[in-house]
Amino acid sequence: MSTGTIYGVGLGPGDPDLMSVRADRLLRGARHVAFFRKAGRSGQARRIVEGLLHADVVEFPMEYPVTTEIPVTDPAYNDALSGFYASCTDHLKQLVGQGEDVVVLCEGDPFFFGSFMHLYTRLKDEVPVQVVPAITGMSGAWTATGQPVTWGDDILTVLMGTLPKETLTEAMMRSDAVVVMKIGRHFDKVTSALKAADLYDRAWLIEYASMPNQTVQQLAEAGDKVTPYFSIIVVHGQGRRP
Amino acid sequence: MSTGTIYGVGLGPGDPDLMSVRADRLLRGARHVAFFRKAGRSGQARRIVEGLLHADVVEFPMEYPVTTEIPVTDPAYNDALSGFYASCTDHLKQLVGQGEDVVVLCEGDPFFFGSFMHLYTRLKDEVPVQVVPAITGMSGAWTATGQPVTWGDDILTVLMGTLPKETLTEAMMRSDAVVVMKIGRHFDKVTSALKAADLYDRAWLIEYASMPNQTVQQLAEAGDKVTPYFSIIVVHGQGRRP
Ligand SMILES: C[S@@+](CC[C@H](N)C(=O)[O-])C[C@H]1O[C@@H](n2cnc3c(N)ncnc32)[C@H](O)[C@@H]1O
Ligand SMILES: C[S@@+](CC[C@H](N)C(=O)[O-])C[C@H]1O[C@@H](n2cnc3c(N)ncnc32)[C@H](O)[C@@H]1O
Repeated sequence: MSTGTIYGVGLGPGDPDLMSVRADRLLRGARHVAFFRKAGRSGQARRIVEGLLHADVVEFPMEYPVTTEIPVTDPAYNDALSGFYASCTDHLKQLVGQGEDVVVLCEGDPFFFGSFMHLYTRLKDEVPVQVVPAITGMSGAWTATGQPVTWGDDILTVLMGTLPKETLTEAMMRSDAVVVMKIGRHFDKVTSALKAADLYDRAWLIEYASMPNQTVQQLAEAGDKVTPYFSIIVVHGQGRRP
Repeated sequence: MSTGTIYGVGLGPGDPDLMSVRADRLLRGARHVAFFRKAGRSGQARRIVEGLLHADVVEFPMEYPVTTEIPVTDPAYNDALSGFYASCTDHLKQLVGQGEDVVVLCEGDPFFFGSFMHLYTRLKDEVPVQVVPAITGMSGAWTATGQPVTWGDDILTVLMGTLPKETLTEAMMRSDAVVVMKIGRHFDKVTSALKAADLYDRAWLIEYASMPNQTVQQLAEAGDKVTPYFSIIVVHGQGRRP
């Protein structure tokens, strides 16, 4: 009996039409698909592929044990996640050992801040793993603004909203173009960092880029608000252009 | 007679299998395609779609009048390019006015350092333009290294090799993960900036990511060399991971 392969398949920003031809083909042919989700939720990755999967597909939802309940700095957070990833990995290895291929659904590009990376590092030396890159959420976001994000020799910095305000501000001040991801409850901190870096008036907020409920607005017009998990802030560069 | 639409279609890093489902469909249905190339070359964008286009497609190659002959700081450089973009735009507007749709082929993602942006700004207020995002060259490059590029709250900075050495070094020192594009004859400068930032030993050089002639090597093993236009340097982040 031959060994199967794990495919870490990037799905892109959300619109199924923006998946790669390879991702589309792997998904439609998959007999096993695995995906992360929060307990009690359907999961964004699974939602993107709705209607594309084979009727006989076997689904393996991997439900996060913790998300925001424990602070990421608490060792208990790492322990819980690490046990969780190990048990997901065990199941996937078992399937592969039985000769099955498994497609792991990944939001955006798997190797760019993706959860799949935690499975990947645990699997790659033990079973065959192939990674299919994809359009990132940020590409979906800047495309939605209708403005190019970088020109000439602009410096682009990608920042997580989870960073301290000072770190954010400093990095923003040294960049021509800025992308901020993982905003959520860090919205106020990110906003004040943008103000401190004098970029607030040029910032755009994109929610659910390329999804049916996409919104695009200037950050200054968004006011005080709670942003969903799928939110990105983009500040466009203004570099050299003929 | 109704107006046509210009589609700025990102083709991804090079492997046609990594184009989006939408790009694939638009290309196969296109009656007019336009693409940039250097005089006397076939052009990478055109090469990616070889074999996919309709037999009756009308091709509009847009040949750069200058590339490296005039320094980018010389006003003559801007004048030449700007006249060139204006004449391309005129032709595209004429086709659209005749009710034709035109697909403009773009390497990688059109809004991320793409040449299409120069047409886009000249067209967008005059004719219908739609942009199809795509997998960037850098996603193709880090996927080729078999290592995730960013973890946790890593800061990713994207830099052009055309920047001054000091700017490169400073930005590199403040980043966890680094991508350098447009390397070419700036190879030595980029290399010394990476050394100054103490990132040289962690840097990877990827040529022709996802193309048939792809190469992946540690920069330290590449030695002194001339890198092709399609080269990217990646330094992976080492952020938090459970
Ligand atoms: C864990 S990261 C995953 C990134 C993903 N691997 C990618 O390539 O975009 C999650 C963050 O990605 C961003 N994101 C991803 N897709 C998005 C979309 N379609 N719209 C808005 N934000 C998105 C949000 O900032 C979210 O907090
Ligand atoms: C004018 S920029 C275009 C970037 C493109 N729009 C994208 O999204 O990747 C050209 C630079 O992109 C990089 N590049 C794009 N595709 C690449 C590939 N497949 N392999 C290596 N480098 C690539 C190279 O650094 C090249 O100098």
